[in-house]
Amino acid sequence: MICPVILSGGSGTRLWPLSRQAAPKQFQRLLSGRTMIQETVARALGEGFAAPIVVCNQRHRFVVAEQMRELGIAGTRIVLEPVGRNSGPAILAAAFMVAEEAPGTVLWMMAADAAISDEPALRRAVAIAARAAEAGHVVTFGMTPTAPETGYGYVERGEPIAGIEGAYRVARFVEKPDRLTAETYLASGGFYWNAGMFVFTAATLIAEFEHHAPDVLASVREAVARRTTETDFIRLGADAFTACRNISLDYAVAEKSTRNAVVPASLGWSDVGSWAALWELGAKDAAGNVATGRTVLVDARRCYVRGDGTLAAVVGLEDVVLVATPDAVLALPRERAQDVKAVLDAIKTPRPDGERLDSIPGIV
Amino acid sequence: MICPVILSGGSGTRLWPLSRQAAPKQFQRLLSGRTMIQETVARALGEGFAAPIVVCNQRHRFVVAEQMRELGIAGTRIVLEPVGRNSGPAILAAAFMVAEEAPGTVLWMMAADAAISDEPALRRAVAIAARAAEAGHVVTFGMTPTAPETGYGYVERGEPIAGIEGAYRVARFVEKPDRLTAETYLASGGFYWNAGMFVFTAATLIAEFEHHAPDVLASVREAVARRTTETDFIRLGADAFTACRNISLDYAVAEKSTRNAVVPASLGWSDVGSWAALWELGAKDAAGNVATGRTVLVDARRCYVRGDGTLAAVVGLEDVVLVATPDAVLALPRERAQDVKAVLDAIKTPRPDGERLDSIPGIV
Repeated sequence: MICPVILSGGSGTRLWPLSRQAAPKQFQRLLSGRTMIQETVARALGEGFAAPIVVCNQRHRFVVAEQMRELGIAGTRIVLEPVGRNSGPAILAAAFMVAEEAPGTVLWMMAADAAISDEPALRRAVAIAARAAEAGHVVTFGMTPTAPETGYGYVERGEPIAGIEGAYRVARFVEKPDRLTAETYLASGGFYWNAGMFVFTAATLIAEFEHHAPDVLASVREAVARRTTETDFIRLGADAFTACRNISLDYAVAEKSTRNAVVPASLGWSDVGSWAALWELGAKDAAGNVATGRTVLVDARRCYVRGDGTLAAVVGLEDVVLVATPDAVLALPRERAQDVKAVLDAIKTPRPDGERLDSIPGIV
Repeated sequence: MICPVILSGGSGTRLWPLSRQAAPKQFQRLLSGRTMIQETVARALGEGFAAPIVVCNQRHRFVVAEQMRELGIAGTRIVLEPVGRNSGPAILAAAFMVAEEAPGTVLWMMAADAAISDEPALRRAVAIAARAAEAGHVVTFGMTPTAPETGYGYVERGEPIAGIEGAYRVARFVEKPDRLTAETYLASGGFYWNAGMFVFTAATLIAEFEHHAPDVLASVREAVARRTTETDFIRLGADAFTACRNISLDYAVAEKSTRNAVVPASLGWSDVGSWAALWELGAKDAAGNVATGRTVLVDARRCYVRGDGTLAAVVGLEDVVLVATPDAVLALPRERAQDVKAVLDAIKTPRPDGERLDSIPGIV
């Protein structure tokens, strides 16, 4: 049995104005009638999988619970973080809880807000990863790159792991490269996008934290020990968890471990990190537009248009993103999709007339 | 005393999504904290002017009354049309009512939704027009053209009228010209934009209708005779008014009359006929943007951005109009501002999935 652990910690600010602090990206219906977290959980159901664990911020507990209810699945354990401390403490908390009953359990850790189009390939990759995990490895998935992306970290493949076809040692993890380096990686064939999906046993993970981040281990162990369990939620001990360092699993363990493995795969994976990515992933009309919700497009080309609870109309624009919600609207060229951040910065800056846009309830 | 008659019959569809059937352009705060009809009425207050008459569709009666109340003026007569029948019947109804007491009264007819920036020049032009009207003329104002506009009708100046400096006979009215013709008009110096503002006495207007459109005269006379007067509103007789032809004052009288006069003037007049016109009229920032309401602009140039009850954010766009309201949003290049109509047509067309966008309450 593989236990899926879904980390729902992302803020999705690059998908403003749809994604907000109160309902970030993973809770939005971005690519289908299901939300991103529903899509994610649905990928890890069925034979061979235990009921999933979702780790989320306590403020999102009802959204998560409702979205699991909509999905019609029972038994999800919803673990509440009093504050976000990144992926390291979150997955470690899940590992401690699972280890109380069966430390050898294989955990499959994934973000709640990524897209994967090839589910059969995913199942095959997870099966390989689970074998490597049972052999004691900390396994990551390497996404076969399709472009010289500078927005992802990369993982370089090392020697094959004997006896586990499809699994390799990790030569090294590398941070987001510059364009030239990314092109070299793409050409070399031995580099993969680090999708931030990992597989390991609970015992391996705990041992790795003990070795590489004992302070995190101590805090999270105490937060788990002091947890309170209600009907619908498991609350981590607030003081201990809050005292923990903010650190990703990559930094805390993966980049330091000697037990790393990588399973290369082509999954049609995307981190759905921008409106431009949603345009790439979406079904296009004859003019290359992706339109979602209530929209009117006249002479538009290669646009991403979304009307969420409001009508979004575009005439005569090309390569533009228009995202409309009842209280906020964003328009920008697709190639500047990363600049949503500049809008959020502007919203947080007092205006010449003294008005604070961030005083509008729920605007960010 | 000059009696201002404000015709509030426009639909302002080219300013969708701000302008709607329920609250068209003249009731919107487009250029200042006042609505267009408030700006219009305010131009015709003070010494020498009687309390204004507003003729509007009965469905807009409370909006008009409230906007007059906001303006703090008393005594406005609000005349309600059961249906719109264009400017001819509307101004004639006002003329009949005024003529009951004083047929020699000078009426100044104007649309409720135009912009005029030079009010002293306007007062001077109205004074000249009133003298010509008292001499029995049907007087129009000729706006000195500043560009070869193809969206306006033109009026050609004839001989000066003896004894009334600044007033001329009308050589002819011409419909909206093509570009080449408009350029000829601009170069010739004898042609003016027909702003649809007229001055005449009530008696002259009634006589002109009697001569050129006796059927309209008969219908409107009966509608006025059968009017009911309430505290706040004067309701025209519905059957008679509804039976009347739909006809503009230009068609019914001005283009046929032998008593036409024109007063040329430079008033900074605009019919505010599109979002592009509002950009032209608006105060611009250093990058040439006009921003109104709740807006965020990052690297935008020469854009018109409006957030009405919602936040409108633009990044990196040039020469684009973005108008955002809570239930509908429009984005288009400024030079395609006339194509708002295509959006309205699309809204009224059933969609492939059977959804009718025009079933959304108040969307058009």
